[in-house]
Amino acid sequence: MSCPHLLEVTQSSHGVLEGHFLHVFRDTVLLPDQQIAVREYVVHPGAVMVIPVMESKSGEVRVVLERQYRYPVKQVMIEFPAGKLDPGEDILACAQRELREETGYSATQWAHAGAIHPVIAYSTEKIDIWFARGLTLGERQLDSGEFLDVFTATPTELLQWCLNGQVTDAKTVSGALWLQNVLSGNWKLQWMTTTATVPA
Amino acid sequence: MSCPHLLEVTQSSHGVLEGHFLHVFRDTVLLPDQQIAVREYVVHPGAVMVIPVMESKSGEVRVVLERQYRYPVKQVMIEFPAGKLDPGEDILACAQRELREETGYSATQWAHAGAIHPVIAYSTEKIDIWFARGLTLGERQLDSGEFLDVFTATPTELLQWCLNGQVTDAKTVSGALWLQNVLSGNWKLQWMTTTATVPA
Repeated sequence: MSCPHLLEVTQSSHGVLEGHFLHVFRDTVLLPDQQIAVREYVVHPGAVMVIPVMESKSGEVRVVLERQYRYPVKQVMIEFPAGKLDPGEDILACAQRELREETGYSATQWAHAGAIHPVIAYSTEKIDIWFARGLTLGERQLDSGEFLDVFTATPTELLQWCLNGQVTDAKTVSGALWLQNVLSGNWKLQWMTTTATVPA
Repeated sequence: MSCPHLLEVTQSSHGVLEGHFLHVFRDTVLLPDQQIAVREYVVHPGAVMVIPVMESKSGEVRVVLERQYRYPVKQVMIEFPAGKLDPGEDILACAQRELREETGYSATQWAHAGAIHPVIAYSTEKIDIWFARGLTLGERQLDSGEFLDVFTATPTELLQWCLNGQVTDAKTVSGALWLQNVLSGNWKLQWMTTTATVPA
């Protein structure tokens, strides 16, 4: 969308925090009215989220979710599996790796749904959303210092938790919109079968 | 949810960036396995998002949206009206103020939908979601340095934009889930009529 009357043009940019995890920049920008303003933001490598769908022989659908303590919000959160891209990593490879490491599941079929920007006011972060199906459970390989429970729920339960406040993680709520519309047949996915051997 | 096997316990906390806008803390925490880890996060005052719903005499529903350039993602984004809480501000008062300032609209009826946490890995931010109806258009009062277009769309258009990638702002995608389920009658809102005079 070309909206020149809204654009902000970078005048200068420098890092103001090189943290253990967070990298913060402060830029000066030229506003549409030619005034100068300051913009501060986190530079993020990008991430993926996976909506892992299981269908039983009876046709019942369940999704794989995680329970994880999230320190900034001081709560145990219900989330779809997700994680950051490693440098140079392909987004599908990242989705496959994160699903396997965090939950132990591998999937034979993958579909790229879309992307979300979780915090457009102060981070560059983009999260690519993938659906996965054809799940096989293996051994999970959590990162050191990572603690999370894996469980499954029906789409109806997930939506109920979005309604009643048990699910408030915005990427997972966004995923619930995708799930609802994919399952209803309103939104179509393009599934690909992956033949890659899952590295140990 | 009580999950002691997931909890992280604060050992120390100190500010590492007091920016113009971003305030970043670095804490050390005791993990469930008694190891020490570092957590860095943005401290945020909290925010509101408003889903303003208009119903024409013919029954057609439209929602009020904004187009705004978001510097961190270098894109013009389509969003529901939203903004940060002022110190000590009530969340409904904030929702009313942000709707009026950004779009010019006042609403006679408000319903609190729920809340989302946009970025649980590195920010304390919580966004309360409100629906507003009974809209009257007045004069908008943008903050200095704020540039945005206001427009309306049908729920069908908004959902189509979530599907095709024109809407990727996670709060707005989350709002679309609420809108879809409220309009279908699956999710019920408790509307309140506000009699407060809108301050000039």
